[in-house]
Amino acid sequence: MAITLGELAVRFGLELAGDPDATVTGVATLQAALPGTLAFLANPRYRRQLAATRAGAVVLARDALAECPVAALIAANPYAAFARIAAVLHPEPPVVPGIAPSASVDPGAVVDGSAAVGPGAVIGPGAVIGARVAIGPGCVVEAGARIGDDSRLQANVTIGRGAVIGRRCVFKPGAVVGSDGFGFARDEDGYVKVPQLGGVRLGDDVEVGANTTVDRGTLEDTVVEDGVKLDNLVQVGHNCRIGAHTVLAGCVGVSGSTVIGRRCMIGGAVGFAGHLEVGDDVVVTGYSLVSRSLRGPGVYSSGIPVSEAAVWRRTVARLRRLGRRGTEGGDE
Amino acid sequence: MAITLGELAVRFGLELAGDPDATVTGVATLQAALPGTLAFLANPRYRRQLAATRAGAVVLARDALAECPVAALIAANPYAAFARIAAVLHPEPPVVPGIAPSASVDPGAVVDGSAAVGPGAVIGPGAVIGARVAIGPGCVVEAGARIGDDSRLQANVTIGRGAVIGRRCVFKPGAVVGSDGFGFARDEDGYVKVPQLGGVRLGDDVEVGANTTVDRGTLEDTVVEDGVKLDNLVQVGHNCRIGAHTVLAGCVGVSGSTVIGRRCMIGGAVGFAGHLEVGDDVVVTGYSLVSRSLRGPGVYSSGIPVSEAAVWRRTVARLRRLGRRGTEGGDE
Amino acid sequence: MAITLGELAVRFGLELAGDPDATVTGVATLQAALPGTLAFLANPRYRRQLAATRAGAVVLARDALAECPVAALIAANPYAAFARIAAVLHPEPPVVPGIAPSASVDPGAVVDGSAAVGPGAVIGPGAVIGARVAIGPGCVVEAGARIGDDSRLQANVTIGRGAVIGRRCVFKPGAVVGSDGFGFARDEDGYVKVPQLGGVRLGDDVEVGANTTVDRGTLEDTVVEDGVKLDNLVQVGHNCRIGAHTVLAGCVGVSGSTVIGRRCMIGGAVGFAGHLEVGDDVVVTGYSLVSRSLRGPGVYSSGIPVSEAAVWRRTVARLRRLGRRGTEGGDE
Repeated sequence: MAITLGELAVRFGLELAGDPDATVTGVATLQAALPGTLAFLANPRYRRQLAATRAGAVVLARDALAECPVAALIAANPYAAFARIAAVLHPEPPVVPGIAPSASVDPGAVVDGSAAVGPGAVIGPGAVIGARVAIGPGCVVEAGARIGDDSRLQANVTIGRGAVIGRRCVFKPGAVVGSDGFGFARDEDGYVKVPQLGGVRLGDDVEVGANTTVDRGTLEDTVVEDGVKLDNLVQVGHNCRIGAHTVLAGCVGVSGSTVIGRRCMIGGAVGFAGHLEVGDDVVVTGYSLVSRSLRGPGVYSSGIPVSEAAVWRRTVARLRRLGRRGTEGGDE
Repeated sequence: MAITLGELAVRFGLELAGDPDATVTGVATLQAALPGTLAFLANPRYRRQLAATRAGAVVLARDALAECPVAALIAANPYAAFARIAAVLHPEPPVVPGIAPSASVDPGAVVDGSAAVGPGAVIGPGAVIGARVAIGPGCVVEAGARIGDDSRLQANVTIGRGAVIGRRCVFKPGAVVGSDGFGFARDEDGYVKVPQLGGVRLGDDVEVGANTTVDRGTLEDTVVEDGVKLDNLVQVGHNCRIGAHTVLAGCVGVSGSTVIGRRCMIGGAVGFAGHLEVGDDVVVTGYSLVSRSLRGPGVYSSGIPVSEAAVWRRTVARLRRLGRRGTEGGDE
Repeated sequence: MAITLGELAVRFGLELAGDPDATVTGVATLQAALPGTLAFLANPRYRRQLAATRAGAVVLARDALAECPVAALIAANPYAAFARIAAVLHPEPPVVPGIAPSASVDPGAVVDGSAAVGPGAVIGPGAVIGARVAIGPGCVVEAGARIGDDSRLQANVTIGRGAVIGRRCVFKPGAVVGSDGFGFARDEDGYVKVPQLGGVRLGDDVEVGANTTVDRGTLEDTVVEDGVKLDNLVQVGHNCRIGAHTVLAGCVGVSGSTVIGRRCMIGGAVGFAGHLEVGDDVVVTGYSLVSRSLRGPGVYSSGIPVSEAAVWRRTVARLRRLGRRGTEGGDE
């Protein structure tokens, strides 16, 4: 697909420095771009690649314009503008309606005529599959689950019984939404399972990463609000609520009944204890432990970057002494 | 299903304060409960909700009775009593025997007539599926694996060749039990794979979380004893043994050949190095690293809760100095 | 299968102390070995078991020979020699060519006549499946993906569109390679998805653990070089490059655009921030956070081993004070 720079400037409200009739047909990195492709500069780390780029045009901020050797589309938010243009130049393949012969669709399920159900997929009784939904190969949608319009389950995804999924959600391979929460009551003989009777509700535009898991609630619902993005291998426990437009990077774990606010940014492998309340606009840097409630906005951390092992061994030895020495009030 | 408070009191050995002929039909939280439902109070965090509850009855400890505005069932362990009652009021759907037409059952497999095999499930040669077992859609039971009576594999679960699974076990979607362990011998040219020839054995009443992985042993078996509960995204390496009634919360990783005792409680995202021995009744709080053997009973920790990022940066800078300053014997 | 010690010595270039006509038929641990089986001693932790072994022969280093009560095969690298012998005594079952009736192979896919496609597997249009490849039950190979000769996808594995996989690779159950990366541009209204247009390339002899995830690149490719071994529940983000013969233990997370060198050894649950460069021959011990680039070779750590909880609480309290006290230059 070829599109002129002039059309891109008009369509996305960008200022063009260059020939409006020049065309681009795809996107690339600054370093790899060839003439006829569009690149972008957003991360200053890559600014040194700008002068040598062979791209047909670059999406960038005004302050980088002077260094740009080719046409430029000037954006207040170059990365977002680039993302929107890339989606136009490289559109997702359309959903081809139909149910694969090897799919198993319960007679009591309702599948919109515009939806696609892939080979080996299984749709349970009472499930409702919306317009233009894609259910990929090997996916399982359990009884009574509802999948909103334009959502896509990629492959081997499992959506639990009665789950309610919004529109335009994306589920990457192996994602599991609506599994039973981890609820046990300790007893003299071990553990008694607590039935997990709540549901799980996802808003619109939620993305759930590969092999990520979101549990259903115990008595009420686990809720993931509009626009939340969960990376791969994330765990969200039962009864949690994740606020709108919050992002959880890979390997994050959220223990049960914790509520996270809106527009939070949670770095990779962060762990949350259960029953906490985290406010809006909280940032937690990667590899941190959140074990108390946090009021937002704010930036929080507890990750320790690596040292050389020999140095680190001494650090740990001294840390131990800190803990052993008398009371907290003791002198140092 | 309606049941009288009197019947619940008798059946579960509870003391009733209220009308024995009043009925409840389901369970709910203190806050959301309507008349005719049963709530509970176990976590003191929710005690303030007791006075305003509209529940038909509340399961609680004797010391909370005075504050209860409705009927009460008094239990020494309210959460366990509630769990048992909830299971009666909301029973799991029964297993409907039969093999789905789209399932692939090897002629050399033995599937009990009371078992259910869902759409797209695959049962390998020599596998043995016990009474009332449910094999969910998309599950794979490899050659020679044995699944004990009343166990349930929910969806897209994989049970490796020759695995031996006890009774009443639950496998949530995406769980993998019996994959090859991670065994390689380093050599001048890279790594030589060490054949993983051991098996994996799970006791009775084991629960394996969504996308959790348990590897088979190298030469002997990986063993998970009776009543062990593994939350989502847990990794148990080859040759490990997890003692009876031990609980591992989400995202825990146990490296190979580590033995964990009975009745341990391991918090979320805890990591265990390999070849360790951890005793009975050990508690490890979330986000800790266990890199030496631990004698039980005891409580162990190494997780650091978050600080504001600016404070944390100073903490890390000072930590670094601790490590750099001279020898361990140096003065402070 | 029985093989003489003499043949093993010749075939693997080992020195034999014992009867060359004695045979072994399998392998076992030192402790469990019976006559007629072969054991090994590599980890000094198990040296005390040598004197009592009933094995037919033991693979060991010369310095342990004097304590060996039975025949010995002396190796410079006993573990690697044992691994090679074990693979001969316990060969993997051969791939039985053929496509299961319940598999869905797109007419536009090319499946080598010597490959096996298991029940319920799905092969998309344009995919190319090499010689002697095994595609296990429930696996999904998306459009245009290429699987090199002798690679094995075990069960419920997903290989994304256009992924290029080398020879002799192993994918354990639930592995996902080639899912879309986690790319979003923040905007006033939330997040704009950045199309993930790059690919993913794996070299030869790569092993991908159960439920491990490797994302495709944003504009260029994610690359995993020859001989890399990824344990279970590992996450490799978009645009990463993992150098040849590097090993990542379980639960490791590598954020996007990070490049890791060759022959690195990364311990369990280590986290890497994004956009880093890690040199060759770097070792990172388990439970560490790598948030800056590391030049190799070297050993790096930041994991803190557990203390008793009471001691640890004091340590944390003192740590907090370190961070709060004035400037970094302040006295202690």
